[in-house]
Amino acid sequence: MDKSVSFAEFANIAIPTPTGSYVPYCQTGDLLYLAGQTCSRDNKMVYVGQVGVDLTVADAQQAARICMQNLLATLYKAVDGQFDRVVQCVKVNGYVNSQAPFSDGPTVINGASDLVVALMGEQGRHARTAVGVSALPGNAAVEVEAIFRLKF
Amino acid sequence: MDKSVSFAEFANIAIPTPTGSYVPYCQTGDLLYLAGQTCSRDNKMVYVGQVGVDLTVADAQQAARICMQNLLATLYKAVDGQFDRVVQCVKVNGYVNSQAPFSDGPTVINGASDLVVALMGEQGRHARTAVGVSALPGNAAVEVEAIFRLKF
Amino acid sequence: MDKSVSFAEFANIAIPTPTGSYVPYCQTGDLLYLAGQTCSRDNKMVYVGQVGVDLTVADAQQAARICMQNLLATLYKAVDGQFDRVVQCVKVNGYVNSQAPFSDGPTVINGASDLVVALMGEQGRHARTAVGVSALPGNAAVEVEAIFRLKF
Repeated sequence: MDKSVSFAEFANIAIPTPTGSYVPYCQTGDLLYLAGQTCSRDNKMVYVGQVGVDLTVADAQQAARICMQNLLATLYKAVDGQFDRVVQCVKVNGYVNSQAPFSDGPTVINGASDLVVALMGEQGRHARTAVGVSALPGNAAVEVEAIFRLKF
Repeated sequence: MDKSVSFAEFANIAIPTPTGSYVPYCQTGDLLYLAGQTCSRDNKMVYVGQVGVDLTVADAQQAARICMQNLLATLYKAVDGQFDRVVQCVKVNGYVNSQAPFSDGPTVINGASDLVVALMGEQGRHARTAVGVSALPGNAAVEVEAIFRLKF
Repeated sequence: MDKSVSFAEFANIAIPTPTGSYVPYCQTGDLLYLAGQTCSRDNKMVYVGQVGVDLTVADAQQAARICMQNLLATLYKAVDGQFDRVVQCVKVNGYVNSQAPFSDGPTVINGASDLVVALMGEQGRHARTAVGVSALPGNAAVEVEAIFRLKF
């Protein structure tokens, strides 16, 4: 477990404003559904374009890491900073702006998965799906969504 | 809250027949998972093709609205018209038939989100993910899926 | 119900190794979230490329069937072979490597849905979403993910 990552560091990341009539998170029972987050920071898209064409896999991993930072900032707000209320990262879906024969989506999305595992250890290990998509909001390179389990 | 939308108006929309061995909805505990719905009406696809190429964002918003009408018709059937059993719209995923650099997927999917918020008010506000995909069933312009929370 | 399919036959399928810091399944309450599985067998991708271009719909149905076999092998491991603990297949999402105007994704994903219904009968009927995506891990033809309900 990477002790260099603490929950507190997500307190100061501004959660991107939803661009429509939805909300950044919705809790039902002990499940917290997080809205998809792109690799934007302070309302500016940090990584734009198709992975494998406009940017490298290494860059796209950084993009995926930013997506997860935005998700964790949302999680922080949802539990009011109380890390002991976060039980498990249950599911992650990663969407990579890319075109066949690009086949390296899982490596890209590891940038998101590795961060939540660094933060939570075994409780961070989630089921995951990674697919390549033809377009993303703001022409983002990556978008990631997640489901967490919380303590009531 | 847009009082012009009532649950009753979804009673008469024919739920599209699943094109395979699946079902329009599946309940587990208090969560109702709705199968993805395209912008078809009476078994005819209303909006076809790529958004930004074959149709405008404004047209695609109407397509997204039809997807949500089909989802709400399914919800109506699932709760036998009892609106007080519908607690919350938890999650919406929107898929827009589009190609990078098209970046306006969230605006398109607002056509779906706005309708459920108009119907349910605050209980209609959901977590959401919108992505652009390279192909959809029947070459639909938009497909939307949703999870609702029900009272037992 | 197709009596030729038994749960035991999934005991000997090797679950593909996750290509990153995630896990093949994650249980929360009575829901089992399965990570997306491609049409790989023994760490070799069986069907590669775009459906409708590089392979036929019939081939892609076989690819979808392999995805579901991998999911059922994962389910088998998750419940330690105890089929009576599997209550319901709740949700299936199918991703087909394809490009518009390809419109036959649902027919492809029936290859996955039909198998779980053959195994479980009515309890195998799930809500489902099928979309076409521009790229998949290892340039797979199909990827499928699923949620099952378990008995504690």
